[in-house]
Amino acid sequence: MDPADRIERALRAAVAPLSSPDSPPTLIAAVQHAIFPGGSRVRPRLCLAVASACGDAAPALSEATAVAIELIHCASLVHDDLPCFDDAPVRRGLPSVHAAFGQPLAVLAGDQLIALSFEVLAQAALVDALPAPQHAVRAVRLTQVVGRAVGVPHGIIGGQGWESESCIPAAVYRRAKTGALFEAAAVGGAVAAGQDGGAWRTFGQRIGEAYQLADDLLDVSGDPEEIGKPVGRDEALGRPNVAVQLGVHGTRRLLRELVHEAIEAMPSCYHADELRAWVRELSEKLSIARRPPSRLHAGADTA
Amino acid sequence: MDPADRIERALRAAVAPLSSPDSPPTLIAAVQHAIFPGGSRVRPRLCLAVASACGDAAPALSEATAVAIELIHCASLVHDDLPCFDDAPVRRGLPSVHAAFGQPLAVLAGDQLIALSFEVLAQAALVDALPAPQHAVRAVRLTQVVGRAVGVPHGIIGGQGWESESCIPAAVYRRAKTGALFEAAAVGGAVAAGQDGGAWRTFGQRIGEAYQLADDLLDVSGDPEEIGKPVGRDEALGRPNVAVQLGVHGTRRLLRELVHEAIEAMPSCYHADELRAWVRELSEKLSIARRPPSRLHAGADTA
Repeated sequence: MDPADRIERALRAAVAPLSSPDSPPTLIAAVQHAIFPGGSRVRPRLCLAVASACGDAAPALSEATAVAIELIHCASLVHDDLPCFDDAPVRRGLPSVHAAFGQPLAVLAGDQLIALSFEVLAQAALVDALPAPQHAVRAVRLTQVVGRAVGVPHGIIGGQGWESESCIPAAVYRRAKTGALFEAAAVGGAVAAGQDGGAWRTFGQRIGEAYQLADDLLDVSGDPEEIGKPVGRDEALGRPNVAVQLGVHGTRRLLRELVHEAIEAMPSCYHADELRAWVRELSEKLSIARRPPSRLHAGADTA
Repeated sequence: MDPADRIERALRAAVAPLSSPDSPPTLIAAVQHAIFPGGSRVRPRLCLAVASACGDAAPALSEATAVAIELIHCASLVHDDLPCFDDAPVRRGLPSVHAAFGQPLAVLAGDQLIALSFEVLAQAALVDALPAPQHAVRAVRLTQVVGRAVGVPHGIIGGQGWESESCIPAAVYRRAKTGALFEAAAVGGAVAAGQDGGAWRTFGQRIGEAYQLADDLLDVSGDPEEIGKPVGRDEALGRPNVAVQLGVHGTRRLLRELVHEAIEAMPSCYHADELRAWVRELSEKLSIARRPPSRLHAGADTA
């Protein structure tokens, strides 16, 4: 199955059990709105690409990991968009969750997505409704991988938390707020496939840094209509943006260097050529999509 | 070790890894403020009481379950207190998290507590830093138990979500918003100890219903100074309150019946007498603490 289809199908399967006669229907709609239609799904795609390169011996665990990481990403967008944070009325070209459903359901939808992320990992350890020991061991490891990418100090909540401090350590902030989920996607893809996750950490970090640079570029030179969210937010909110410091061309050069470093950092695996090709294709998309609007050749690859 | 000490020690051990030079310090302070000093810790105490009655063969898993359930409870209080929900300035006699640290850190602290809850369960499956198969299987089951108590449709988020609907099904709402964590405490305590969790579901439900009644009583007849939070909230917020319908005496009679039903529903276990005594003691505390202020004989047993 095409990875994009596999991800959408797995996401739909993950949220299906939430709907029941005992479920508050508007909250279910808010959760659905937070996930569908998605953005680029780049994190779950990275996860499945690494799992495939590692042989993908346990597809249910790979899919669960990809889903868990995308759900955490969606949760972070829903909460980041709240009035008390970015106060963003638009996301992916549609009203943000709080704009469409109100703040209470946006808070709850984010909470639900975080909890569901961990439940999905546990669910993937079941064989015939019972936890299978080997899968359970991997599910525990995957919970640690995803947990690290969510919480303080290394994860996305840690990064977000720095925004309430008077002095933000730029490297720590970016690694936690953006890099952590990419790192988890790579490490988790390998762990799900039964390989050593730690060996994939640098690879995931470099891809995450490249993606962050592309996002910085987009914030200074993107077209809000094309990318489905406002631009110039970093400057307005006083957040570090590399493209402001290095300029568009310097940033794109650094982006290519990071992709090269990612490929160099790839551990040996069953299907290294396919993964290298995938990374080069991603790099190409990031470079194209981050050109100024007048030179845009392809649909933007937004979050 | 005294169960109360065991719970506080386990909670402190669970949050200790959050603190590091890379952690945003005010968020860490907000997370600590959400957990310490605690309320009655009735849910983790119920969890440890059931685990002890079942032999408590894996104390690390019992403690992790107790901690996970209390962290979810704390998360729900932090988010429930937000201005977009109850707008409560005071909790446990101190400023609520958003009153003390602002809304952004209150949202993030709640998110962190949810994620940490699941991480703690995974952590408890480790023996010498590696997941042990038998413990990993139980950690997966416990993740399902806790996940059910958190998410839609059966858990606390589901209950909270009903507050955004025009028509609230009272029984579903209360079972999800209050009952689910008590049920999880009982079921999880048994699972952590290697016993059949499902057999403990009714016991946990009845204890949860009794506690909810006591809370309803408190809301109509408590002293805000004594209980550390405002009263009359249910009426102000248009929420179902049994004590309004049945009166104080009728509600206390029903409370005693529920405790009796809980004891009747206890499955056979190693230390049934101790657990029955614990339930009776809890029942006594609930009845005393929920008397009108002029007749209060003991410190209130608030959330």
